Amino acid sequence: MHVLDAPPIASQPAARARSFAARYAGATVLALGAHPDDIELGIGGTLAALSGAGARVVMAIVSVPADFQTRCAEARAAAAILGCELRLLMDGGCHRIEDFKNYQLVGMVDELVRELAPAALLTHGPGDFHRDHVAVYHAAFSSQRLAQFDFYSYLPTMCRPVPVPFQPRAYVDISRTIGRKIQAIAAHPSQFSSRGITFELYRDIARLNGRMCGVEYAEGLDINRMVFA
Amino acid sequence: MHVLDAPPIASQPAARARSFAARYAGATVLALGAHPDDIELGIGGTLAALSGAGARVVMAIVSVPADFQTRCAEARAAAAILGCELRLLMDGGCHRIEDFKNYQLVGMVDELVRELAPAALLTHGPGDFHRDHVAVYHAAFSSQRLAQFDFYSYLPTMCRPVPVPFQPRAYVDISRTIGRKIQAIAAHPSQFSSRGITFELYRDIARLNGRMCGVEYAEGLDINRMVFA
Amino acid sequence: MHVLDAPPIASQPAARARSFAARYAGATVLALGAHPDDIELGIGGTLAALSGAGARVVMAIVSVPADFQTRCAEARAAAAILGCELRLLMDGGCHRIEDFKNYQLVGMVDELVRELAPAALLTHGPGDFHRDHVAVYHAAFSSQRLAQFDFYSYLPTMCRPVPVPFQPRAYVDISRTIGRKIQAIAAHPSQFSSRGITFELYRDIARLNGRMCGVEYAEGLDINRMVFA
Amino acid sequence: MHVLDAPPIASQPAARARSFAARYAGATVLALGAHPDDIELGIGGTLAALSGAGARVVMAIVSVPADFQTRCAEARAAAAILGCELRLLMDGGCHRIEDFKNYQLVGMVDELVRELAPAALLTHGPGDFHRDHVAVYHAAFSSQRLAQFDFYSYLPTMCRPVPVPFQPRAYVDISRTIGRKIQAIAAHPSQFSSRGITFELYRDIARLNGRMCGVEYAEGLDINRMVFA
Amino acid sequence: MHVLDAPPIASQPAARARSFAARYAGATVLALGAHPDDIELGIGGTLAALSGAGARVVMAIVSVPADFQTRCAEARAAAAILGCELRLLMDGGCHRIEDFKNYQLVGMVDELVRELAPAALLTHGPGDFHRDHVAVYHAAFSSQRLAQFDFYSYLPTMCRPVPVPFQPRAYVDISRTIGRKIQAIAAHPSQFSSRGITFELYRDIARLNGRMCGVEYAEGLDINRMVFA
Amino acid sequence: MHVLDAPPIASQPAARARSFAARYAGATVLALGAHPDDIELGIGGTLAALSGAGARVVMAIVSVPADFQTRCAEARAAAAILGCELRLLMDGGCHRIEDFKNYQLVGMVDELVRELAPAALLTHGPGDFHRDHVAVYHAAFSSQRLAQFDFYSYLPTMCRPVPVPFQPRAYVDISRTIGRKIQAIAAHPSQFSSRGITFELYRDIARLNGRMCGVEYAEGLDINRMVFA
Repeated sequence: MHVLDAPPIASQPAARARSFAARYAGATVLALGAHPDDIELGIGGTLAALSGAGARVVMAIVSVPADFQTRCAEARAAAAILGCELRLLMDGGCHRIEDFKNYQLVGMVDELVRELAPAALLTHGPGDFHRDHVAVYHAAFSSQRLAQFDFYSYLPTMCRPVPVPFQPRAYVDISRTIGRKIQAIAAHPSQFSSRGITFELYRDIARLNGRMCGVEYAEGLDINRMVFA
Repeated sequence: MHVLDAPPIASQPAARARSFAARYAGATVLALGAHPDDIELGIGGTLAALSGAGARVVMAIVSVPADFQTRCAEARAAAAILGCELRLLMDGGCHRIEDFKNYQLVGMVDELVRELAPAALLTHGPGDFHRDHVAVYHAAFSSQRLAQFDFYSYLPTMCRPVPVPFQPRAYVDISRTIGRKIQAIAAHPSQFSSRGITFELYRDIARLNGRMCGVEYAEGLDINRMVFA
Repeated sequence: MHVLDAPPIASQPAARARSFAARYAGATVLALGAHPDDIELGIGGTLAALSGAGARVVMAIVSVPADFQTRCAEARAAAAILGCELRLLMDGGCHRIEDFKNYQLVGMVDELVRELAPAALLTHGPGDFHRDHVAVYHAAFSSQRLAQFDFYSYLPTMCRPVPVPFQPRAYVDISRTIGRKIQAIAAHPSQFSSRGITFELYRDIARLNGRMCGVEYAEGLDINRMVFA
Repeated sequence: MHVLDAPPIASQPAARARSFAARYAGATVLALGAHPDDIELGIGGTLAALSGAGARVVMAIVSVPADFQTRCAEARAAAAILGCELRLLMDGGCHRIEDFKNYQLVGMVDELVRELAPAALLTHGPGDFHRDHVAVYHAAFSSQRLAQFDFYSYLPTMCRPVPVPFQPRAYVDISRTIGRKIQAIAAHPSQFSSRGITFELYRDIARLNGRMCGVEYAEGLDINRMVFA
Repeated sequence: MHVLDAPPIASQPAARARSFAARYAGATVLALGAHPDDIELGIGGTLAALSGAGARVVMAIVSVPADFQTRCAEARAAAAILGCELRLLMDGGCHRIEDFKNYQLVGMVDELVRELAPAALLTHGPGDFHRDHVAVYHAAFSSQRLAQFDFYSYLPTMCRPVPVPFQPRAYVDISRTIGRKIQAIAAHPSQFSSRGITFELYRDIARLNGRMCGVEYAEGLDINRMVFA
Repeated sequence: MHVLDAPPIASQPAARARSFAARYAGATVLALGAHPDDIELGIGGTLAALSGAGARVVMAIVSVPADFQTRCAEARAAAAILGCELRLLMDGGCHRIEDFKNYQLVGMVDELVRELAPAALLTHGPGDFHRDHVAVYHAAFSSQRLAQFDFYSYLPTMCRPVPVPFQPRAYVDISRTIGRKIQAIAAHPSQFSSRGITFELYRDIARLNGRMCGVEYAEGLDINRMVFA
């Protein structure tokens, strides 16, 4: 590696004015995930930072596929840790997203968008390998015809690692909320500790993302659309 | 077309807090273009909005390929209209970018980034068909190793239309500065009016971008990297 | 922008021999759309030019999702304006495309292709955000195993703007049929005027496409396959 | 493999009206290749069909890298076999394309486009692995700002096989000119027979392309832009 | 074409140690196909080489869509020719893959992966045009979370040619098993000979792939993941 | 996240037979890097494993851009740590790759490939942001016309982090050689310790890659071509 005679890194001015929290202060942010724990894995640190800075943050889970009571309780505990409101779109018991039509899923997300008028919506991305995650992304994509919100995708989330391409386009500093992110994931023992599965993968990813933007820990997002209006 | 029973568009809350100008208020923004008029065509409206809101905006032109005096004067006039500082990287006469090595170009951009410590850098994109534009993009890409700035690309710019893929990822409302953008482009008569070439293409593009985000006129940007820290 | 010393635009010889209508004169062209109004929005001008030049043009709508009588009547009116035959694949009442299996949809398109032996098939593209549109594209793709027709995709169609990548690869001059295209769209008041929705977006797109190929108005197509045999 | 109950292939009507030759009858077609033999390998059959049908076909070679006299003579023999005019852009002796700047190459192609006002330009594609081929593609791309011609790319050409992605988007029936294509390639003994290198690869590719569109032999093209005006 | 003064091809040392069979000797390889004949068309030669070298090779067909007895018998005959074990995932009669949910399909593939612990899994690719093939690919992709196997995709398989992009990334020499591949395909008369459909396309493809890697016949694979551990 | 009722991970059989070292035992492997330290950063662990298993491994550096004596000494020290032979293509003093033509670079790589007849070549990838790295990749790509070697790309290498997309397609277990990789990087104090730059980024990446394939540390490779013959 040789790039132009070892130039010193320019000193970075304090940029709190350009934090994620600054952009959405006083606004509503909608985080959408297919199942309990997806949102925590993808953007737990970002949401904690947002709610801590005064944004209203709604975590909307599409469905609970099994162990309804347990997983709802875990989701509630995690949402409390992150300072977020919790919603369940396919309520009343266990459901599988594939058992619903895409137009039904679009209807549920539309309703939420109409109610909340979010300034930003964060959900799964189109390159995820889990078909349910992709379906949720597509439904969220459709809801853009209703309103002009910023629209982000978080990394493919999974309990057991499968390599899937994901290149962050935005980095959110979560150095001060990494602890709460980890706590919120740990609030899902049915998915991790009780099955002997570690989630250290997500701390490693956050550290690597941090290196990419000069902070200790960061979450990476892909940006589908931003509206500067 | 049928998407879920004709839902009403959610009323949009005032979002000035999420404008481009709000994000970079009090900071320095660096606009980089291969030749005179590129920056105006790509982001004239955005720059006028930024400078109007108090950001320091530097328009850095890499080279003047011909008619040195005329084109420098046009560039100065345009920069004045947009409220921006003007820089010329390959100064002292006409130069062709291809006659310099990539490492020399990286050196010039590095120097600028070190001096200005910009919060954002906007330049050509990798999909442009003009080799000089792509070279400038690559040099700007390299300068990311020096500092953590937001890094955007604007649309392929050209005097005579050639179809090239470009899909905006961010929309910047320029409804209030479209007039100044047009004026700034018109400040380059050597490229347009004196050759009988119209630049109405750029107004059409701004109108179309505006439709995509619910305003009258907008400029579209691709986002290479954003840092929320 | 500086490309080689301002060369004059070469004078264009009359190219009627290379028009879309010339290519399909005396042949059958099949236009396929998921719902009423999709075809008009995407290629109304092209179809009017084709039918005006003596091609047999069949507009095949896959399903009417709601307001069966109204929307059928609107579709008939629009087809008449464009000089096209109208077909409805999922006839007899309202249907949702997602309620059919892909193999059923392939069967319907196959039947049409076998009956009409079209020289060209134009339909939605794979990058459309509406899942129904993508399903129709996939079905049309499959029907290529039956016959050697030219296969084109038109732009993502929608009532309310959502940014979706679409880069035309072919431009069809519709300067003489833009009026009929607009009339044909206006023949769908249930989707536009009665809901207070404008469709000026499509005129803007046609103007921009026109600029890209040196005419007043054009429609853009992506080309999936052409057979010069 | 199972696609919908084994449907019979629809009988194909005679489509001579949609041949490549029909589209460009009476017009000028410009074939551009980096070095002698590239054009023959890529589109020898297509050019023979065009010239046979009365189009003016110009084969423009950018440079002869070695053995000037021999390779010029071979190129002349091949052009004669295909019924085409021959041009050499970097004339007067051996030249390497890389020793010229991109703007110089653009200038040469521009001049040719202005002189010939071609209805179609066929050249290398952007995915070729040979840097000279890509440079020629870029120069041809730029010349689109001068005029509205159809713009095609042919497959990566090479003496010794290297796998490179290339997916034809258009198929040109060369069943009646495959013999002349092979003859034209064989007219370059310095590249093939005298080095013990076979060019049967190109016959195999033509046969495979033929299978894809229901004829005996075909050449495949990618389509960068078509103008139906 | 001119690449550096006609260099002689380096003499190739014998590389049997790097054959596909060497990599999987003594291990289990799982070949997965949507319907009878897909696996033979895609990787019949590779499987014959593997089984001949002592690997355990399991051909798992997801469903028989029609003519249950006939097609099962054909599949058994083909598997015997290739020296492979045969499995049918949706057993007991005709089934259509689309009539199952994705999670059901994932369950079936998971079970197979758990039972066999394959060192490699070969199946359809994501770019196939047949929706059933893509569904099988997605299910196989998901099963990567269970175990660390090499994961390959074979070319789009079809009875009647449809152009679909597929670029091999790996080449497997099948010069010694091409005959058995052809025999195994011919063991499906219900799909080919009894319908008057040739499968010479696949011999042509194998010859072309062979040219790309210096052997007589080869099969091409895309590589999704390899684990060198 | 919910994928099919929490299935247990299949127990993995010992797979040393499928290690990278097993594939290239007794053969020559060529590692190619633009400048000193690139190879160590990208594939130091893989090379140590290969040389330790008896492969001949040649590290070929294209150029030393500055501090010739120092950097040559560092490169020699690193090569010794990894058990590799060292070559310098642009020898005799400092050189910049851009000051050479692509055909000259191809000539240098060709010569090496002819001399060594490598079973595998590992170098930079096409998506790297450093123009020199991309130039070296292109030259290596061209050398495929001379011989049938496996051709891999390693991740973008850099001293200061810049986000660039890179998705491994192959994972090489380096759990037993991570220490030597780190030592080999540390052997370049002029690039890291003496400038106060850490290279912990590369340990983090190796840990993350390890998680993706169930080992402690791994290096990720993209695969351009593999030949199983």
